[in-house]
Order: sequence, then structure tokens, then C-alpha cells
Amino acid sequence: MARTSLSGFPEWLPEGRIIEMHVLDELRRVFELHGFAGIETRAVETLEQLEAKGETSKEIYVLERLQALKAAAAGARAPKDKGMGLHFDLTVPFARYVVENANELDFPFKRYQIQKVWRGERPQDGRFREFTQADIDVVGNGELPFHFEVDLPLVMAEALNNLPIPHVRVLVNNRKVVQGVCESLGVTDVEAALRGLDKIDKIGPEGVAAELAQSGIDGEQASVLLQMAQIRTSESSEVRARLADLGVGGELLDEGLKELTELLDTANKRMPGAVVADLKIARGLDYYTGSVYESEIEGHEALGSICSGGRYDSLAKDGKRTYPGVGLSIGVSRLVSRMISAPMVRASRKVPTAVVVAVIAEEQRERSEAIAAVLRSRGISTDVAPSAAKFGKQIKFADKRGIPFVWFPGEEGSADTVKDIRSGEQVDADPHTWVLPEADAVPTIEKVTD
Amino acid sequence: MARTSLSGFPEWLPEGRIIEMHVLDELRRVFELHGFAGIETRAVETLEQLEAKGETSKEIYVLERLQALKAAAAGARAPKDKGMGLHFDLTVPFARYVVENANELDFPFKRYQIQKVWRGERPQDGRFREFTQADIDVVGNGELPFHFEVDLPLVMAEALNNLPIPHVRVLVNNRKVVQGVCESLGVTDVEAALRGLDKIDKIGPEGVAAELAQSGIDGEQASVLLQMAQIRTSESSEVRARLADLGVGGELLDEGLKELTELLDTANKRMPGAVVADLKIARGLDYYTGSVYESEIEGHEALGSICSGGRYDSLAKDGKRTYPGVGLSIGVSRLVSRMISAPMVRASRKVPTAVVVAVIAEEQRERSEAIAAVLRSRGISTDVAPSAAKFGKQIKFADKRGIPFVWFPGEEGSADTVKDIRSGEQVDADPHTWVLPEADAVPTIEKVTD
Repeated sequence: MARTSLSGFPEWLPEGRIIEMHVLDELRRVFELHGFAGIETRAVETLEQLEAKGETSKEIYVLERLQALKAAAAGARAPKDKGMGLHFDLTVPFARYVVENANELDFPFKRYQIQKVWRGERPQDGRFREFTQADIDVVGNGELPFHFEVDLPLVMAEALNNLPIPHVRVLVNNRKVVQGVCESLGVTDVEAALRGLDKIDKIGPEGVAAELAQSGIDGEQASVLLQMAQIRTSESSEVRARLADLGVGGELLDEGLKELTELLDTANKRMPGAVVADLKIARGLDYYTGSVYESEIEGHEALGSICSGGRYDSLAKDGKRTYPGVGLSIGVSRLVSRMISAPMVRASRKVPTAVVVAVIAEEQRERSEAIAAVLRSRGISTDVAPSAAKFGKQIKFADKRGIPFVWFPGEEGSADTVKDIRSGEQVDADPHTWVLPEADAVPTIEKVTD
Repeated sequence: MARTSLSGFPEWLPEGRIIEMHVLDELRRVFELHGFAGIETRAVETLEQLEAKGETSKEIYVLERLQALKAAAAGARAPKDKGMGLHFDLTVPFARYVVENANELDFPFKRYQIQKVWRGERPQDGRFREFTQADIDVVGNGELPFHFEVDLPLVMAEALNNLPIPHVRVLVNNRKVVQGVCESLGVTDVEAALRGLDKIDKIGPEGVAAELAQSGIDGEQASVLLQMAQIRTSESSEVRARLADLGVGGELLDEGLKELTELLDTANKRMPGAVVADLKIARGLDYYTGSVYESEIEGHEALGSICSGGRYDSLAKDGKRTYPGVGLSIGVSRLVSRMISAPMVRASRKVPTAVVVAVIAEEQRERSEAIAAVLRSRGISTDVAPSAAKFGKQIKFADKRGIPFVWFPGEEGSADTVKDIRSGEQVDADPHTWVLPEADAVPTIEKVTD
């Protein structure tokens, strides 16, 4: 990470940014491969929109015009802007965008969106106040087939497992299962049950039991809920068997189990090992109504979920219609931060440049520029040495940045030469025909193994 | 443009976003081809940083935490955040980043940066409150050779002229020329002269003369300045001749003319027609010290400059060192807005998808998914029909989005077929070997000619 004077607002040095761009490019590639259209929404929403999601209101950054603030401080009547704040996620803005543009969009509408979001909370370890999210969602007009609840976590599993990081598991559950178990047990405060279970990794089963007791959930009910929360398997038959052992049942539970079964069975066929049912997953947000998703990186479980989401039925609605959807969001900054700090990966160089053309003398700079222009016209990222220093210094310019090749314009009558500064090998070369090894075309991201 | 409920905060529909992404991808490609490293800075700076550029302070959006505002309104003592605001350009944050990370960066440091910026001004025609800028800058440690003042506008000329828009001219001038002419005339308030000349396109020569008079610049001085401002040519010899005709001279003017000559002569050699000297260009910002740049799109001159910048000597400095630089910034949102609204261009489709695989029946969805997986593994962007509707409806799904191909899984024992829904041609095909025409691989951006 770069030095930074504001905590919670991360910035990367050029090498870190190369790693981040690699991640963003790969995510985009996979999303587009699956037919998701890219959109961006403005960073700013009305406070009304943002506050509609009550529980997150503590995290909102409000915008004020400096001029207006100064005028107000001076006692003048400042023209009041409509209350506006920075978005804290990409789901709420997307829902607003869908409603505003419903007549122009084709449903089901599949979109990806990669943008910064802001949360005004106190920065803690690994929590950022400004960070990048990468979301995919699909929304329908009035209805949305269940199969999208299977498709979307698999797209994310593919996207994440294409990155140079350890294996990522998508953990799944279904709100109807949890709710069905609650109903079957006679637990009425389902929200409290969800909130409690959500903390199991933080405060342990006993802590959760104590919390549940405070919400009027008795010891026997809590015991069943906690046993449910310990179910973790990729086999739908095991989920069914263990829930049956708990003696719970009912229509909603059956519906949820049918969906969870379909999700697990299809995922096991299409992408074995990618998806695991984990019945403690609750997801705090109250708009989820069906499948819910979290994820973990093998060996980095303590990092928490880097990709989460679920099915929602009425997040987006206008007077006439609702637009049900399902989506997942990757916390890119937290992931990239871990990739850099672990370190999981390393960039082969700090710049896009593959070749530096040396300059023999300032009066001959245009010769070097002409060579660079030819190389660039062939798609080779090329820089020209900033000054006609001694060749040793020009080679050092390349070496410091990890640029693999230095090109030397030939003396009168002799050919140009190009030097691989890693091996020291130097050969005659013509900029129109020289072949840049494919492995050196762009900076590569290598896994750090030791 | 999409419908939007907040004026000045533009959003694009998916087709517009495809055009914007094409522009951003092309800019990035050219910047990286020239060895610029990508960085991002946080969106937030301290007010102290932002206000150091006095003249722009009216445009700053200040951030407050909603919770703190509510606590303050309720009379509680709210913990005061360090004053923070959103950046209004990418130059000021870049200067701060360079100073903070100077020990980690390699100088001269060439970077590009493509990000949103915010200005809290009243939105006017074509003025946005949130918009994307694409900047390139190079900064040195203590010194920066003049040749970068030639290189950078040419990189921008190449980047802009690679886009599907009419020819872009980069207009150049040199602060030392303007200042030298002022000195030669005995004009002491150079700032006033620059501010006046900057308005020549808006208020005309007479309006400028009136403004200059108010700053104590007499009629004769103003007359020479206005004649200077009318010099526009790509030939350095003409600049020199016409300035000589005005009877101005002096050391600073000579130095500026030497630089402007080198810029024009080199540009004419490397990229004929790309660069034109225009001596009325002043650039309001007071940190420029050498070359200054604006630009115009042929046939869209009234849009104003979509790419501007210049040389600065002391924007970035810490206790010990200064980091002189030169850079240019493209107003991407304004450019894209014009490309869409003119319209200059059109996207061949609204989604990345090249193929939709039809679904024969919901029970056979996995067959279609298997075909899609094979196509995707070969890099072909593929979607699967959202429901097993009648084939006519599935074809309409593709047609509405501009997706060129629909893939039909074969009935028992017979081959799959793929249909080009534009021509109606339908042929047998195997997902492992079928060749997607290269022109259909990704959405293409076509110039609108009529």
C-alpha cells in the first residue's frame, strides 16, 4: 500500500495498481463472457434513497457545497441543495437506475458494475472508508426464474477462481430454510434469529444462545437453531437428512430445501467443489428473500466473506411494478489489499513498458522516437530514455522499473541492437520485425509460493 | 443519456456505456503503449489540500458523516472529522500522491489516471457536477527535460485521434511567450492579461479590451495583446514573423519562442496536422509555467476544449524538493456525451453477448448451459435464454439486444444449429469448432456518417 495521510482511504503504489487492474480486468472479462452488460451509476444518491435502507444510515457521507457552508457560517441564507450523499454499495443505486430506466432496459437485465463506494464508519483493521466493489445482478420485470439463483454464484465462482489466489468456495443458504426452521420451532422473531446466527463466527455458539435468549428465543429453540447452523456440506442429501434429524418441517422449509437442493445439485454438476451449503449464513440485510451467498478463500477464512449477495424480491419497485433480482458483490479492495500484503502475488514489473529505447545524444532523440513509434505501431509498449545519459544509467532506468529490454539505435551504418537486461543477451534487431516474447508483452502477475 | 433524477450527474444507458468503455479502453491502450503507469488516488482529499488552489474553492463538495450531522443537530458534541472534500480534478491529488510516495516512485514518473471528479457548481449546459477525467502527467525529481512538453501533447493527439470522432487538433501556446510580450509592453499585471485573453472566444476582442482597460492595461498595450492573440498557425516561422511585426522582444519572450518553435517543429515532423500554435490560449490556472495546451474537435469547436493542460514547476513540493511536471487532462464525460447525443457513433449492440443458446425445455436447460460453457471456454461471450419460451420469443430476446447469433441444441441424434438472425442463415454447428466471425466478437463502435 502507498503511504497515505487519511486512514481508511487506501491507495496503491504503481505495482499494487497493476495487481488491482489485473483483478478488475479478469472480473470484467468473465462477467462479459457471461453476457453481463457494464453500467455505471453516479456516486451520489439522494439521502432519501440512501436512508431507505435504515440500518446502513450510520455509514453515509453527506455532501455539502463548500460555498454554501461558508455562506451559512457567515449567517447568509444559503441555497440548500437537495440532500445528497455518496453511495455505500452498488445495489441500492442499481435498483434506482432500473426503476428510472425501466422503459429503456431489456428484461431480464444482466449487469455488472465496478465502482468505488464510501462508508463513513471508523476505519478498523481491514475496513476501508473508500473501496471498490464489483457487482453482478440480474433483475426481471415482475418475475425472475429461480435458475438465476444457481447461475450467478457460479459466475462469481468462475471469476474468483480465475484469479491468482487460493481456491474460493461460495457458501450458500436459503432464507426460506432458516425462516421455515424458525416457523417450525415457533420462533416468531426471525430477524433476531438471523441477526444472532450471523454472529456465530464472532461470538461463538454460547454467545449466540445468550443473544437469542434476550430476544425471547428459548433454550430448546436456540439449541435447534445452533445445530442447524452447524450444517455445512456440499451434498443436498446430507442437508436434508440432518434437518430431518432435528425434527423440523413445514411448507416454507420444504420450498427452501427444494431450492437449496437444486442449487447444490446443479453446482456440483457444473462446477464441482465450488459451492458448499453453510446453514449459518444469514446475511444481515433484510431485503433478501431466497438464496443467500457468502464466500471464503481457502487458508484465509479469517478474512471473512469477500463476495456476498442473494435473492431479493422487492428492492426495486415503482408504483406499478416490482423488479425482483439476484446478485453478488465482491469487495475488491479488501481482496487486493490481502493479495498485496500477504503477499499472494507479485507483478513482474512496475510499468506497462516492455522496451526502453536508449538515446545516443539529445540531438539524436528523434531517431529513438522514430524507433519507438514503429514498435508502438506493432503494439509493443515502449518508452524512450528521458535523457541521453551514459548507457549504464539508461539501462538502470529500465532495470529499476523491471522493463525487460533496452533498444540501442545503431551507430552510423550498423544495425540496431536490443538487449535483454535480465540475461544480458544482446542481438541485432529491426523495429519492424523484432519479436517481443509473448510472456513479456504485459506485466504478469505471479503467485508467490514461499 | 439515461433518465436521471439529479441534474448534473450523468448516467448512460447500457449502449452509451459501451461507447464510454470503448473510449476508456482506447485511451488506456495508447497511454500504456507509451509507457504510462496507471494509478488511482482516493476520491477524497483534505480541504486544506483542495483549498490551496484558491480559485476553485467554490466548486468543492465537502463530506460530513450523516451520524455526526444528526448528533450535531440534536445538540450533542459530534466528533469532528478532519475536513475532507471530493477532488475536483486529478492534478492536485496526483501532486499530493507524488510528494507522499516520492521515496517509492521512480523519476521521471509517467502516470495515467482515469477517474471521476466532482464540482459543486450549478449545472449548466454541458457542465457536469460528476464526470470522468483521463489524465497523463510526467513529473521529475527536481528537474524535468523540456522534451516532455513536446511528447505529452502528441500522446494525447494520438489517443484522441484513435477514437471514432472527427479530427482533434491540439492547440498550444507558451506562458513565457505571453509573459514576455507583456514585459516587452510594460504590462505588469500579467494575471489580468491572461484572464482577459482567456475570454476572447466568449466576449470578443472588444469585450476583452474593456476588461483589460479596467486592470490598467492601456489601449495600445491591449491592441498588441489582441493582435498577438490572433496568431494561429502550425508554422513556427510565422509565429516569429508576426510577433516581430508587433515590435515585441526580450529575453523571456525569446526563451518562450525557442520552446514553442521546438514544440511545433517536432510535432510537425512526428505527427503533421496534430498541433497548432494558438496564442490566445492562456489557461486560467496559475500554476502553469511553460507550454500550455487546449484542443478542439473539427466541426465541434463550440464544444470547447476537451483536452487541456500544461507545464508546471512547483505544484508538487515538499520541504526539500520540488517535482516539476507536465500533463494533460481529457474531459471524458463531456466528450462521450457529445459522441452519444450528436450522434457521432453508434454501438452495434447493447450487450457484450455474441451468442444466445436457446433452451428447448426447462428440464433441458443444462444441455444449453453445457453448450454455453464450451463457447465461453473459447472466449465467445454467451448467454442462455432466460426461459424455455417458444423459439420465436427466444430469437426476439437476442434481436432486441442486437445479439447476432442464436444457437439451437439439436433434437435427439441431430446436430446443433446456429442462426445468424440478421441474415436468417442457419447452419449445423459444433460448439467446439464453430468460428464466430471476428467482426462480431465484441460490440463495435461505428461512426454515424449521415
